[in-house]
Amino acid sequence: MEVSNRYVTIKTHIHGAPEESNFEVQAETVALTIQPGSNDIIVRNVYVSVDPYQINRLKSYSSSQKALAISSGINPGEGIVSPGLGKVVASSDPEFEKDDLVTGFVTWAEYSTVKAGSVRKLDPMGFPLSYHLGILGFSGMAAYAGFFELCKPRKGEKVFVSSACGSIGSLVGQYAKLHGCYVVGCAGSSGKVALLKEKLGFDDAFNYKEETDYKLALKRYFPGGIDIYFDNVGAEMLEAAVANMNHFGRIAVCGTISEYTDDGRRAAPSMLDVIYKRIKIQGFLATDHLNLHSEFRSTTCDYLRNEKIKVLEDISDGLDSIPSAFVGLFRGDNIGKRIVKIAEE
Amino acid sequence: MEVSNRYVTIKTHIHGAPEESNFEVQAETVALTIQPGSNDIIVRNVYVSVDPYQINRLKSYSSSQKALAISSGINPGEGIVSPGLGKVVASSDPEFEKDDLVTGFVTWAEYSTVKAGSVRKLDPMGFPLSYHLGILGFSGMAAYAGFFELCKPRKGEKVFVSSACGSIGSLVGQYAKLHGCYVVGCAGSSGKVALLKEKLGFDDAFNYKEETDYKLALKRYFPGGIDIYFDNVGAEMLEAAVANMNHFGRIAVCGTISEYTDDGRRAAPSMLDVIYKRIKIQGFLATDHLNLHSEFRSTTCDYLRNEKIKVLEDISDGLDSIPSAFVGLFRGDNIGKRIVKIAEE
Repeated sequence: MEVSNRYVTIKTHIHGAPEESNFEVQAETVALTIQPGSNDIIVRNVYVSVDPYQINRLKSYSSSQKALAISSGINPGEGIVSPGLGKVVASSDPEFEKDDLVTGFVTWAEYSTVKAGSVRKLDPMGFPLSYHLGILGFSGMAAYAGFFELCKPRKGEKVFVSSACGSIGSLVGQYAKLHGCYVVGCAGSSGKVALLKEKLGFDDAFNYKEETDYKLALKRYFPGGIDIYFDNVGAEMLEAAVANMNHFGRIAVCGTISEYTDDGRRAAPSMLDVIYKRIKIQGFLATDHLNLHSEFRSTTCDYLRNEKIKVLEDISDGLDSIPSAFVGLFRGDNIGKRIVKIAEE
Repeated sequence: MEVSNRYVTIKTHIHGAPEESNFEVQAETVALTIQPGSNDIIVRNVYVSVDPYQINRLKSYSSSQKALAISSGINPGEGIVSPGLGKVVASSDPEFEKDDLVTGFVTWAEYSTVKAGSVRKLDPMGFPLSYHLGILGFSGMAAYAGFFELCKPRKGEKVFVSSACGSIGSLVGQYAKLHGCYVVGCAGSSGKVALLKEKLGFDDAFNYKEETDYKLALKRYFPGGIDIYFDNVGAEMLEAAVANMNHFGRIAVCGTISEYTDDGRRAAPSMLDVIYKRIKIQGFLATDHLNLHSEFRSTTCDYLRNEKIKVLEDISDGLDSIPSAFVGLFRGDNIGKRIVKIAEE
């Protein structure tokens, strides 16, 4: 049996801020049968994730940037790899049966043909399926591992989170509050600031677009200094955080969205501050910390069941909405985890 | 009994590169007797240390830089605090007797009046006294703690050291070699490069002044990437190291001498590299790691007794030589630990 499979790709490599016109939906014919021994699985996608970091795979890499292509660049016409979940259509691996629910790395497509190791079976555990791409997926894992494993928070410590209404930032702030920390977030609109304070329980929050001097802003929100900075944005905010860090402060660098679309934009934090204040700045990927996965999941499921943590989702409908959903991330359109629903379960 | 005590101070706070004319020798009258209960000790200095980081205490601090004044700024006319060693002249603390050899924080002076907690008794253990300011003092401790504790080296890992002929860099490289690492250093003259390769046993070394593109230079010396960078210089070399780091690379930021005398000079390493390559950048002070002190000392004394480690010292004579010794550090005049001999033992 064959189907026409629609998928999103780029027309050319992207430079600067992405636009919807950079993308197109292509169609291909896919045989819904598998070669035995191929180790392939065909997944009919239900939800796919839309994340800022994906821009870094859609650029063309100059020689000086090759190091960044470690999660391999994606070329025009190719499928765009993405976290997602769906149902097994056919599998060469006897561990997976037709209609099994699976999650892992698929593509922005109706159907994705992936290797067996790219996905695992998914038990929804009574939660909405979409949660397994956000709070119970890589976003949650990044928030949990970055905050607890890299930053080793102690009760009462002062935590700053940027992109605090984003998929990861919104969870970091809530984990930090549940851990007994004092938490301030920044975001890009007054509506988001209100949401952080009123719905997510942040101790304070500010709209960075209303601040002209981030160093002074952070000084105001942290008169006693910052112990932990969970960085999702990079550039000037990272510099300002370093200037306001306390001794033995820890910075988890999860993302630098303000730098993704501007190659010349960089943070130049004071290394003298880094030395004298013994600051640790550390980059990480959620996938490095899978040893924490069961702890992360049981803790987070408990919080969800006891309604101690709020889920911010921003779900759009249909494969064709992926380009605008993606492009909007860089304008800060999203509140919480941006997910695209590809099909009904 | 009173003596005239000569000491070095600054005429005004220093901006930019220090010059000998920034300093002057002043004289004061010191009573060589102690008020009981004052907790004071008077030390007749034998050797004092001259280190680049001291410039950071001699600047005037604008509000934006206040955080740096944590080891408190020093004002014109005041004594300049420095590691040193000498003999007790008088002590209010019964633990110290006249003529005891002590080391710790004194001042650039013939006599220093310090609190009892600032110094400890020194057992030379058969080594030249000067060793206890360099290889067996804070320089050695910084090299040992920064390399072993922050960087957690594994045998065979690739290590890059900047200011590799400096008091700390020369020891880091030798510790790394003794640990089974591959070590490349950079320094500022062909003579230093030869010394690193021929005397200190570095696997390779280069003169950074002959390189126009540090990224390409490091690519050439580390075609397989850098696992550990021990940073003594900051700025462009730190950026280049980040660009050439391997996954899970570690950077110990010990000093940023190229930034000390130019406030506008900063490293702007790619944070995208930091994330994707999961790089850790960490500042430290030797004094934070005194828990390692006995391990450091026994290991290093063994290396010295078995002639497995070389000592580079650069000793000048007399209090009046301190300003030129200090100023020369920023021109890279020194080879190894710069020490000034104040008096005979």
